[in-house]
Amino acid sequence: MITICPFCKPDSHASVFAFSGDIKAMYNLSPILPGHSLVIPMKHVTSLFDLNEEEISAFFSFARKVTAFLCEVYESDAYDWSLQEGTEAGQSIEHIHLHIIPRKPGDLPDGEDWYGKLQHSVDPQNKERIVLTESEYNDITMYLKGLWK
Amino acid sequence: MITICPFCKPDSHASVFAFSGDIKAMYNLSPILPGHSLVIPMKHVTSLFDLNEEEISAFFSFARKVTAFLCEVYESDAYDWSLQEGTEAGQSIEHIHLHIIPRKPGDLPDGEDWYGKLQHSVDPQNKERIVLTESEYNDITMYLKGLWK
Repeated sequence: MITICPFCKPDSHASVFAFSGDIKAMYNLSPILPGHSLVIPMKHVTSLFDLNEEEISAFFSFARKVTAFLCEVYESDAYDWSLQEGTEAGQSIEHIHLHIIPRKPGDLPDGEDWYGKLQHSVDPQNKERIVLTESEYNDITMYLKGLWK
Repeated sequence: MITICPFCKPDSHASVFAFSGDIKAMYNLSPILPGHSLVIPMKHVTSLFDLNEEEISAFFSFARKVTAFLCEVYESDAYDWSLQEGTEAGQSIEHIHLHIIPRKPGDLPDGEDWYGKLQHSVDPQNKERIVLTESEYNDITMYLKGLWK
């Protein structure tokens, strides 16, 4: 069975709300909090070590811009970045990506484990994580795309 | 009461096992797993947004080198990066820092929340996180410093 990377599917460009050069930003299909988005290299690379120095600079410069944007849109003064590389770290999609999660006071019950939530597979049967409908997802993407400058 | 930033204390340079320009790497005094280290700008800045583009490039380029080094020393094929900015995200020290955590198969019980562990304050009374003795900490720093090229 051939598995197509969800970040490389032919229609995945429609899910991009911002891009810069060869890097894109997409909303998470299964956000653990409002605004939870991903920054992803366009090319299919598993590891951060598959990027050259110039690409690393561009990746984190863009990630920072996306973070400022998301914090503004979702009215947050705080954020988490999480990057997992390798199965033991919980990398679920073999295409490297950075999670950006805007945070707000009281957004999760005290001590709640958002990292644990990230590890739960995105499965409609899994009540631990919501999964947006196609319509909800498209609406959010269009909304963010409209605000991105 | 004047609180001195633990990353800016006059003797903190002794805790650095590697540096590049204005960025340093230190072992975590309270590692949640072996190899757990921090990459920190030398200057006291609270936010990633206090760094200019050149500094951002240098920071993540160095962070990647430190990650490769730690994964080699601690024989890991996987790693987690975590960066928390702002109180609501769990930033405990007001000097921005990136956590690098080498990961191995079975290193934490299934579903264990290392992010939750990060949130626990570093307190000798707190049984949730070990705190290295000064001697243990210095030994690890010297060991890593000796291996860093």
